[in-house]
This record gives sequence, structure tokens and C-alpha cells, in this order.
Amino acid sequence: MLPNKVSIFEVGARDGLQNEVPVSSNAKVQLIENLADAGINRIEAGSFVSPKWVPQMADSSEVIKSITRKQGVKYSALTPNLKGFELALDAGVDEVAIFGAASQSFSQKNINCSIEESIERFIPLMEKAKSLNIPVRGYVSCVLGCPYEGDIDVAEVARVSAILYNMGCYEISLGDTIGVGTPVKARRMVETVAKQVPVDKLALHFHDTYGQALANILACLETGVSVIDASVAGLGGCPYAKGASGNLATEDVVYMLNGMGIETGIDLTKLAKAGHAISQVLGRANGSKVANALL
Amino acid sequence: MLPNKVSIFEVGARDGLQNEVPVSSNAKVQLIENLADAGINRIEAGSFVSPKWVPQMADSSEVIKSITRKQGVKYSALTPNLKGFELALDAGVDEVAIFGAASQSFSQKNINCSIEESIERFIPLMEKAKSLNIPVRGYVSCVLGCPYEGDIDVAEVARVSAILYNMGCYEISLGDTIGVGTPVKARRMVETVAKQVPVDKLALHFHDTYGQALANILACLETGVSVIDASVAGLGGCPYAKGASGNLATEDVVYMLNGMGIETGIDLTKLAKAGHAISQVLGRANGSKVANALL
Repeated sequence: MLPNKVSIFEVGARDGLQNEVPVSSNAKVQLIENLADAGINRIEAGSFVSPKWVPQMADSSEVIKSITRKQGVKYSALTPNLKGFELALDAGVDEVAIFGAASQSFSQKNINCSIEESIERFIPLMEKAKSLNIPVRGYVSCVLGCPYEGDIDVAEVARVSAILYNMGCYEISLGDTIGVGTPVKARRMVETVAKQVPVDKLALHFHDTYGQALANILACLETGVSVIDASVAGLGGCPYAKGASGNLATEDVVYMLNGMGIETGIDLTKLAKAGHAISQVLGRANGSKVANALL
Repeated sequence: MLPNKVSIFEVGARDGLQNEVPVSSNAKVQLIENLADAGINRIEAGSFVSPKWVPQMADSSEVIKSITRKQGVKYSALTPNLKGFELALDAGVDEVAIFGAASQSFSQKNINCSIEESIERFIPLMEKAKSLNIPVRGYVSCVLGCPYEGDIDVAEVARVSAILYNMGCYEISLGDTIGVGTPVKARRMVETVAKQVPVDKLALHFHDTYGQALANILACLETGVSVIDASVAGLGGCPYAKGASGNLATEDVVYMLNGMGIETGIDLTKLAKAGHAISQVLGRANGSKVANALL
């Protein structure tokens, strides 16, 4: 049974732009406002990770403060710790996100600690968020493979997902960080996680590095999952660039859902124009096939 | 039930190269030999359409004659009429292909006659092929949409497919020529056609113009269809070029099938190298995400 509605969680302004050449704060604000205008109501608007790690996100506070808010839209930011959480809250986010990994090696190389240590570090943030009634989203990376370990046991994905959910995350976003997944495995992974976290609390965050993201999403939609992360114009990695992260273009998934009669509330033409505008600012090809075909 | 095996019908050297800048006959021969070496055993090697229409294919006879044949590989060519059929046979093809459309407007604009007239014209070719025991493949274009008419009635797709099959075509390749299809519609189309043509005589020829091809294939595999047309390196249309035809990259579908445990007999690394080599000859970006990720 396919869902009647799917909620799109737009990550282009964060997961996308953090992997592109830096753009002005104004360009980010414009992008975020254009996305809201296209009908997207969940937007990751920035990151409060150290600017030493991710200089592209150094102005997240300024960006979030400058957005002309649209009613009904939730603006979010990635926050690695209590300090980041407080900065994000000060900037005016509606919710935040934390990130764990399903791979020990990836956790060590990416954030320099074990999975357990990374979760331990989120406890003060989670407590503060709870006391202030701020929703926290949890990312789990490497759910279909790790650049260092290769295959990842789905039981480990379920274990980490359940820890984050039980800590209080309202939704768990399952990330195929390197885009290596294929449909049967993707579906089996979601089914396994759904035994420990309610399926309506799961989201799919699939990268398109190997061109598999839409097929993987299709395979997973029948499990009941109905939240999809995507990045307008495929921001975050041109598929023709070496080492691209290969974010899935929001336009392409919205086109598929439209064609399947699944409601998203998004105006595809406006969305494609939003992606076209930021692609021009970046001086890069638009990573959405739908946008290239439509515009 | 997914198939255990899928047969790949490689169209890069024809449907691909006919939409690219011209390359030398030697480069075509090398491509075709590389594809066979990678384990592809069904290769469309040229077209005997008038060189006035498709100058890129003017040397098909020379190309096919020059190939060092690999045992077990079938070399095919597109033939619009008896004259083309005889030229193809003289060049040494193992089989030929004819093409019809599921859209009257497309038929008129593309080959300047109605669907019925186009089929009428194939009768002498079909009779000759039958007398010589040469297999004929039938293409049906616009099965999921037409650039002039928009939506196409699946009953019309089934009707044209059945005519070609009943005329003697051993397989019907269902072409989403402009790549507009989405999974639910694609599956319904195949199911409808399969009521008139046995499903094991159907092939999927889906373009990736809107990024939907793999998802559409996934949706159709469960109907029992197990032949897929694809174009190495996505030859025939860089997804970032205006008006690109957007052929599906063979590497990307083989990667998906491998990941799903479906056998193709193809060496993905060799295939990716074949696509890389022809992309370099063309001086264009490789249209396969898998190839870009692997190489």
C-alpha cells in the first residue's frame, strides 16, 4: 500500500550548500524563501557545526534570522551539541537535528568518536530541548553502506535508530550517505528498523551517487514510510564531479510522487525555479533531471 | 516475484550514438567489441535509416562488417524498410528491428505516416525476414507519453504491440521515448500490454529524461518482464543538455540488478570502462552515475 501523502524534508540549504562553494547569506535566504513559496513546509536552513569544519555554514545564524517566515513552515538546523543548540534557538529555529552513524568507522573518521560517545554527547542537548519543548530530529548515516566498512548490518541500523528515538527524537532520518543502496536491501533495512521505531517516525535520506535513490525510495514507500529528505537541484554534489555526495534532487522525487498520485503540496514549477536560481548563483549545472527537462 | 535473470539489450551504439556528435567507424567498432567483452550479448550495432535523416549512422554497414564477432553475441540493426533490411543482412547482422509508435501524432511527425501506414510498410520486410529466418524485434515508441499528444492510452500501446507481435516480431520493446513515465503508470502499461503479448516477449526501453527510468523498471520487474534496453554511459543524451533524449545508462541498471541479486552476466567494471572510453572519444561527460562513482 502506497501512502496517499508524502512529506518532503528539504535539505538543500544545509546538506546541499555545505558541500558546494560558499554563497552569500542573501542567496541562502532567497533560496529558503523560494522553497517555502513552492510549498515546502519543512526546511533545514543551516548548521551550527564549527565553521572550522564547515565554513559554508558559518553564517547560519544570520541566515535564519533574516528569513521572512512563512506560516506553517518549520525551519530547522543541524546542531552537534548544546552550544550549537543554543545558537540555533537564539537564531529562531523551530526544531533542530542531531546526527549519529550506523558505522563505527564512519563515526570515528567523521566526528572522531564512537557511536556510543556521539550519543552520550547529545544527552545535555536532548534534555534542554525537552525542557523547552523543541522537537529534535535524528539522522542515522551509512544505513546502506559505509565508505570504510562496506556493508552495514541492518540490526546495527535498527539499534542506533532505536537509541535516538528512545532518547526523544521525534523522527529518524535513515541516510544512505554514500548512495550505494539498491531497492531490495533498502526495503529490508527499513522493515528491520520499523520493528524498533514506528514506521511513521521514519524518513528516507537517500543519496543518488549511484543513481539508485528514486528506485530505493519506491521500494521503501510500500513499507509505510512517508517522509523523504531531498535537496533542490541536487545541491550538494553534481553527479559529474569526482567525490560528489550526490544528493537526490527534490524535483525528481516530487515528479515521481505526483505521477503516482501521491500528494506533496508542492508546486513543481516553483520548486524547479528555486533550484534553477541557486544553481545559477553557484555557477553549476542543475542536478535535477526534471528541472532540466521542464525549464 | 522478481526475475532471477535479466537480459540487457544494449542500444548505445545505435540509439545512443545517433543522438551524439559523429564519431569514427573505428570508435564504434571498438565500443561494440568492448561491450561484448563486458558480457553483453545483445547489441544494436547500427541503423539503416536514410543517412539524410541520421548522418551519424551512415557507416553502419562498414561498422558491422568490421566487428570482430564474439561467439554467443547477437548483433542487430534498425531497419525501416526492405532496402534497409537487405543492407543490414549484407553487412552481417544476426537480427533486425522495426519501429512503430503508440501515438499517431508522433508517427506523423517522426516518420511522416500514420501508425497503420508505418505497419503496412513493414510487411515486405517481415515476409523476407520470415523466409530467411531472421529474427525481427519491434519497437513501440511513446508508450508512456507523447511530446505532441501528452498522455497515451495504454489500450493503444497494447493494440500496436499486439499488431507487431502478431506480424512476427519475436520481442516488443516498449519505449518511454521522452522519459515522462512514473512507476505506477509504467507498471499498469506493462500489465495491460501483457494481456495481449506474452510478458516474456516484452522489453522495457525507458528513457531517463526525468530521472525516473530505474524506478519505472523496478515497478515493472514484478510483472515478469525481464528484458531491459539501456545505453552505456547514457549515450544519446547528456542529462544536462537541452533537448537530450536521456537514455538510461546501462551501468546504472546493471548496478541495481546486481544489488538485487538478479543475474545479468555482465562485468560492471568492464562495462563502465567501455562507457568511459566512448565518452572520452565524444568529449562529453559520462552520463552514468555508477561509472562516475566507480571510476
